[in-house]
Amino acid sequence: MQFGVCWYPEQWPQERWATDIEMMVDLGLDLVRVGEFAWARLEPEAGRFDWGWLDTVIESVGEAGLGVVLGTPTATPPVWLMRAHPDIMITDQRGARVPYGSRRHTCITSATYRRESLRITDALVGRYGANPAVAGWQVDNEPGNHDSARCWCDECEVAFSRWLEDRFGTIDALNEAWGTIFWSQTYPDFDSVRLPRDTMTSQHPALRLAHRKFASDQSVDFLRSQFERIRAGVAPGIPITTNLYCEDLNVDARAVARLGGVASMDNYPHGVSTPFDTAYLLDLHATASGLDGQAWIMEQQVGPVNWTDENPQVSHGQARLWLWQSALHGYDASLVFRWRAARYGQEQYHTGLLRHDGTPERVFDEVRSTISEINRAALPKPKPKIAIVHSYKDAWAIEINPHRRGLSHRDLLFEAYRAVRSLGLDAAIVDSTDDLGAFEIVLAPAIQISTPERIAAIERALAADTEVILGARSFVIDRENAWSDRPLPAGLSDRLGARVIEPTSQNLAVTIEPWGTPAGIWTDVLEVDSAEVVARYGGSTYLDGSPAVVTRDGLTYAGFTNRESWQALLADRTGLSPIGGNIERFHRGDALWTIDHDSRLITRSE
Amino acid sequence: MQFGVCWYPEQWPQERWATDIEMMVDLGLDLVRVGEFAWARLEPEAGRFDWGWLDTVIESVGEAGLGVVLGTPTATPPVWLMRAHPDIMITDQRGARVPYGSRRHTCITSATYRRESLRITDALVGRYGANPAVAGWQVDNEPGNHDSARCWCDECEVAFSRWLEDRFGTIDALNEAWGTIFWSQTYPDFDSVRLPRDTMTSQHPALRLAHRKFASDQSVDFLRSQFERIRAGVAPGIPITTNLYCEDLNVDARAVARLGGVASMDNYPHGVSTPFDTAYLLDLHATASGLDGQAWIMEQQVGPVNWTDENPQVSHGQARLWLWQSALHGYDASLVFRWRAARYGQEQYHTGLLRHDGTPERVFDEVRSTISEINRAALPKPKPKIAIVHSYKDAWAIEINPHRRGLSHRDLLFEAYRAVRSLGLDAAIVDSTDDLGAFEIVLAPAIQISTPERIAAIERALAADTEVILGARSFVIDRENAWSDRPLPAGLSDRLGARVIEPTSQNLAVTIEPWGTPAGIWTDVLEVDSAEVVARYGGSTYLDGSPAVVTRDGLTYAGFTNRESWQALLADRTGLSPIGGNIERFHRGDALWTIDHDSRLITRSE
Amino acid sequence: MQFGVCWYPEQWPQERWATDIEMMVDLGLDLVRVGEFAWARLEPEAGRFDWGWLDTVIESVGEAGLGVVLGTPTATPPVWLMRAHPDIMITDQRGARVPYGSRRHTCITSATYRRESLRITDALVGRYGANPAVAGWQVDNEPGNHDSARCWCDECEVAFSRWLEDRFGTIDALNEAWGTIFWSQTYPDFDSVRLPRDTMTSQHPALRLAHRKFASDQSVDFLRSQFERIRAGVAPGIPITTNLYCEDLNVDARAVARLGGVASMDNYPHGVSTPFDTAYLLDLHATASGLDGQAWIMEQQVGPVNWTDENPQVSHGQARLWLWQSALHGYDASLVFRWRAARYGQEQYHTGLLRHDGTPERVFDEVRSTISEINRAALPKPKPKIAIVHSYKDAWAIEINPHRRGLSHRDLLFEAYRAVRSLGLDAAIVDSTDDLGAFEIVLAPAIQISTPERIAAIERALAADTEVILGARSFVIDRENAWSDRPLPAGLSDRLGARVIEPTSQNLAVTIEPWGTPAGIWTDVLEVDSAEVVARYGGSTYLDGSPAVVTRDGLTYAGFTNRESWQALLADRTGLSPIGGNIERFHRGDALWTIDHDSRLITRSE
Repeated sequence: MQFGVCWYPEQWPQERWATDIEMMVDLGLDLVRVGEFAWARLEPEAGRFDWGWLDTVIESVGEAGLGVVLGTPTATPPVWLMRAHPDIMITDQRGARVPYGSRRHTCITSATYRRESLRITDALVGRYGANPAVAGWQVDNEPGNHDSARCWCDECEVAFSRWLEDRFGTIDALNEAWGTIFWSQTYPDFDSVRLPRDTMTSQHPALRLAHRKFASDQSVDFLRSQFERIRAGVAPGIPITTNLYCEDLNVDARAVARLGGVASMDNYPHGVSTPFDTAYLLDLHATASGLDGQAWIMEQQVGPVNWTDENPQVSHGQARLWLWQSALHGYDASLVFRWRAARYGQEQYHTGLLRHDGTPERVFDEVRSTISEINRAALPKPKPKIAIVHSYKDAWAIEINPHRRGLSHRDLLFEAYRAVRSLGLDAAIVDSTDDLGAFEIVLAPAIQISTPERIAAIERALAADTEVILGARSFVIDRENAWSDRPLPAGLSDRLGARVIEPTSQNLAVTIEPWGTPAGIWTDVLEVDSAEVVARYGGSTYLDGSPAVVTRDGLTYAGFTNRESWQALLADRTGLSPIGGNIERFHRGDALWTIDHDSRLITRSE
Repeated sequence: MQFGVCWYPEQWPQERWATDIEMMVDLGLDLVRVGEFAWARLEPEAGRFDWGWLDTVIESVGEAGLGVVLGTPTATPPVWLMRAHPDIMITDQRGARVPYGSRRHTCITSATYRRESLRITDALVGRYGANPAVAGWQVDNEPGNHDSARCWCDECEVAFSRWLEDRFGTIDALNEAWGTIFWSQTYPDFDSVRLPRDTMTSQHPALRLAHRKFASDQSVDFLRSQFERIRAGVAPGIPITTNLYCEDLNVDARAVARLGGVASMDNYPHGVSTPFDTAYLLDLHATASGLDGQAWIMEQQVGPVNWTDENPQVSHGQARLWLWQSALHGYDASLVFRWRAARYGQEQYHTGLLRHDGTPERVFDEVRSTISEINRAALPKPKPKIAIVHSYKDAWAIEINPHRRGLSHRDLLFEAYRAVRSLGLDAAIVDSTDDLGAFEIVLAPAIQISTPERIAAIERALAADTEVILGARSFVIDRENAWSDRPLPAGLSDRLGARVIEPTSQNLAVTIEPWGTPAGIWTDVLEVDSAEVVARYGGSTYLDGSPAVVTRDGLTYAGFTNRESWQALLADRTGLSPIGGNIERFHRGDALWTIDHDSRLITRSE
Repeated sequence: MQFGVCWYPEQWPQERWATDIEMMVDLGLDLVRVGEFAWARLEPEAGRFDWGWLDTVIESVGEAGLGVVLGTPTATPPVWLMRAHPDIMITDQRGARVPYGSRRHTCITSATYRRESLRITDALVGRYGANPAVAGWQVDNEPGNHDSARCWCDECEVAFSRWLEDRFGTIDALNEAWGTIFWSQTYPDFDSVRLPRDTMTSQHPALRLAHRKFASDQSVDFLRSQFERIRAGVAPGIPITTNLYCEDLNVDARAVARLGGVASMDNYPHGVSTPFDTAYLLDLHATASGLDGQAWIMEQQVGPVNWTDENPQVSHGQARLWLWQSALHGYDASLVFRWRAARYGQEQYHTGLLRHDGTPERVFDEVRSTISEINRAALPKPKPKIAIVHSYKDAWAIEINPHRRGLSHRDLLFEAYRAVRSLGLDAAIVDSTDDLGAFEIVLAPAIQISTPERIAAIERALAADTEVILGARSFVIDRENAWSDRPLPAGLSDRLGARVIEPTSQNLAVTIEPWGTPAGIWTDVLEVDSAEVVARYGGSTYLDGSPAVVTRDGLTYAGFTNRESWQALLADRTGLSPIGGNIERFHRGDALWTIDHDSRLITRSE
């Protein structure tokens, strides 16, 4: 595992750089990320480049034996560029261009912005593509973050119409697939399909899902062109990646990670609720580039951040735990964010390894010793036996139609994920297009979209003796967000030997028997044909005694959503008991590793 | 009582229609509403009509012995029409036209929209006006819903100025009546009176009240022209109505219901808080077309909806209860919404009598047996002895000046309404222009606007030996929302022999003695001349011992707002005791009917 | 102490005026404020003035022996003026002009608005400047209220660029001072520095702080020109002032108060949380015109208002307490708001001394007797020994970077203020430029900006044997909101003999020992060199035993924020014990006065 740090030498006097690099070496680092917000410094005015400082940085880092991860600075175009081309700014739903004075405020569809982005990328590749000190490239920074993937400008309007035309061919095909007859929404032509701006009530769910896919596709297209230019200009094997904010839902992380074969994410545990949310996100991005792909943490929190509600302190041992957690989740690299706290700008209160005054923070020594510990441990990669099916398309569909205010795809998956971890097991979080047959058990707690490909994938997994467990409201809609007119789960009802007759939102106290666990917010009512009933609803409501979990030949349908019921079902399937506490366990080679998030203890036993 | 269902045949293959109609007959229905969102299907492009499918629908329904309620589709103009005439879209306060992609997004003032609406209405009337299978007409759908009654376009701006000019004649008259000298708001001319867009602080309360009246008037005008065209083209006696969302406050429901003599409302109990809120709304709309007018439920919830926070299941017997509740509240018709759950569009998660796959929902049989039960019961109409005065103008005035964040006219009325129901009595909810002398007791819990007509109406009722009980803050403002400079209640203080010297908002624990009940959020302090004191404030505050309820010759003033105090006062007046529980009682003919909302039991005793 | 009332004769028939003035005399008043919203009445159309009514008012008030405080009506320009010059309306961030129909909706930067404001001011001064009945002038009304200080129009855009150019000279100097290299925000020229409109994430903190200063400066400039015209046209010694809403943070109250040497504020206790918040605001404005300057309450609540959430009643004795509270806090004048409740407009529910119908409210007699009581008491001015440093610039910096959602400068100061009051002591609230050496103890609980002037001021105070106590996060940023690269507190660390190594936001249960008091939301971690440790952190966290309060030669650093810890530290310093309850104590001459806010008792002992 490689370790590194994110450094902004352009924000500090050059006289200090040597000291900084010495301290990085002392810390045991391998990698230093630089440059990703430095466009204004690299090109102070149109066409005039100032390479000297970056030449020095790269050379010095290289000479110290570390590798540079070089960022393309396209997330922060200079003011002069945004003044010269105001059309590149993101336009909001009301038609107003977002003011500059931040980052990621440019439209990723804009031809001008794409052209300028490739121009600066080309310049960087031209100058540093062959530089041996450059050990990797980061394209852009957190695309989609700050809700930047959806722009509402005229170029996006046209691009969306064309994207739909490419997809449907004729407007009649679109009208038919989307069911625009509902509320007389029939479109006369593709130009009349507009971006789904807020209106009196919500926009059509098919339009909204298409827009989510379009926006993600636009980001991937934008990144792809930079990937191609860099790949063509660097030595083979040099990793190229784009770091995504760990929780971002605007851009399909798998599509991004598969551009270069390396996933990378920015890991900020203080931005999420529990240590298991962090674990979930680590497992989500770990497989983003493929079941055996590479995964990096491009930014790792080690001290207080400045953007949460309370921005609390970080106690002794917490940074060590976070680094170990990423190592045990199988990450290939981790770069600490950031080297030194910034004196200026929007992140003044974001701590780093060094204080604003240049002295080491308390955590500095903790990071050094942890790097050394992890290097010594030489951990093998995880080999999970359980996979959980995750999909951005399902996530968007549920965002559009949550049916329960505030409910998300993530909430539904997390209930199952937490149950797997509570039994001391690893969980892979995979796409439905990944090889499901590679696992003993596959859980699909929120797989709403039914497609022939998905049905085939499940059938292949079942044929490979994988048990497949579907959660509540599985396979209820089609690719275009239309509800199925077939028995539910659509396309698998016959195979299951049962059908869902009421996909019910529940506000009564319903349990799952014989386990006595809560059913949760959804309770699919099942009508059984040839399936075997595994569990039934309880709780003195009209559901009492009706089937809740049914199974037939390896395909199981669980009508509930609550994690305790997931845990009971999985305990039943695996014979394992819950390990309790806020504890993660990892079987790695012959060793059993344990992280106790309460005591912050990390232990190893054989 | 007639029963029916809302059907969207245009959303389903024609081959299925015969099956659907057969099932409707089996259910025991009388009416089928169709067509109200089908403009795009009826007129796929400008001037080209496609009547075939609707001909078939109407003919088939008629042949099956059911009557069609035909909707005019003006709530959902087709995309081609909105593209051709972008000026018809509602404009928001900021001057932006609302995007299409929903419904009710067109300005009801727009001359173009009105012209186009009459064009499609004329076409429908021309084709089906004389068709014997058409048993009724619905004009538009839920006007005012989604806050659609207030548009801020240039046409509305001009129309508002003209509406004011018609009302006041001269700008001096307006300035005088509104008191625009406050904060130098004096208008030089009618054109300078602008729609009350949000500004630094709130807009002038007289302007805001006028705007509410104007907006409601515009909707009524818009509907009236359709009513007239239909009335002229159909057989006498054919009911014509416009369905309003049960809670809508944007359009005066009485003005709408009196256009055609039939009130209709859409009844969604899951959209309100308690069963008594549903009861309140049923009683509100039951008299909207007149004390003896007709009232329909045009849409009746029987299963989960898709637009509340939780959208929970509906237990066994709940749909039966809802249908019985409307029958006991005296409704003449009830149409279940909807026939079959929609595969497409914004209501995919809204259930109907059939599932998306066409099979009957659990509630199907329950509805069938309930229709039969209710038909057998042959209930006589309610004859309430107590009336509660309700007025949209008071409601708007309180919305503008609630004096207590979140307080509404509805809150104040509901306290009194709940007290009446808690004694097992029916309550009529009536306008101050209705014949108040027809009741034994009239409650006016929130009658803020003092006008000569209202004073005369109260005096007529008193002369007819009706007891009139005014609530806190009665008769404090005039027609233009100016506070009175006379003793309060303005115009009735002499008649009462007392005056309100402090219309106080209360945050102390004040009681009403001798009943020991809470006073509530308002406690009018009274100075008594010749009135008799019925009750006094208690509770160890400065109010202790001062008069709270006073009466003189049939006119009573109750200075409180809380329902327990209303209950105590009414118990005192009627000699009845509270019946407890979530129970409604109805004396119908010789029978006493009881609905227990907790157990969902409906019982009849003699 | 002078007493007065705010009167709007233009809202009432002239026949009533004599009665009103008689009643004012009966009440014992000295002053009557008139005219501040009457522009439309004074100048009904452009250039045509109607002075008659105001001549009569001023003459009648003067003849009755009272003095008029004459308001310039610039907060409410007439409709005809706003129609003729739409460019004077405030423009919001989106570029939309705010609609008229309220007050303070005009841009204080607008050249047209400034010209028109001086025109009406000149007219008033010309007519009444020498009138002996005019005892004082109020310029405008509550500038900055309703967030009116920050306008986003083109004139403001240009003015801001010029303001920055005046300040920095060159764009390089600005880029350097602000650190715009962060996120490539480097500006090519002053025109490219735009007003900090909302964007994807927050705007640069240096830009935001500059904008806050600019906006406050603009208001002061706007007011200054009116002050100059009035000063030039009235007799020497006539007070001129501008009333500010007590809590307003948009305009530096000291800069305003020092324009004319008289502070004035509008005191609405129902708008704040506790009686001590009112005390805090009284003390804040009491010194706004200088440590020995004059301070007026231009509007004093005595009854229910109409703009809070509940607008509750005001119990017997409460108005008396409020008037006494302002007297004991050293105020020179207090004018009750308002004379008679308005029938019309946005304040219909705001009570006054008279009801809408012209009869006296319950509080009328209470006010009369209180004026008499206070006049008899002849209170000397307060002479506090403790001062608390307050600064609008620190307040804005913390608003920009609260680091903890919702935290404010006011919150931090109030913790210390409440502690001082809890020991029965007066507290002055002073600027860092005021003479700190005039106090025995100076607390700076939230002094974030480190400047050479401030360091010098503290050193002068220390040299004068004043103990200076800095709170958590003192001196962390510079004048331009850049974080210091020196040891913290920046510029005083050496003097203190200690430095802050972690300015930590705390979510653990940390105490201060030996006192056992809570540390609060921030716990600065200190590294001690030559300082003495006064107290340490406790509480079973990693902070346990580390220094929390350190001191060296009169300079103390308190790393906590909680009021109980402030109280313990001050108890330690003064030897006093907390007095408990909701009690304020005041040593005035030989007497000790006590206000008990719970019982509303005011007592005097020797």
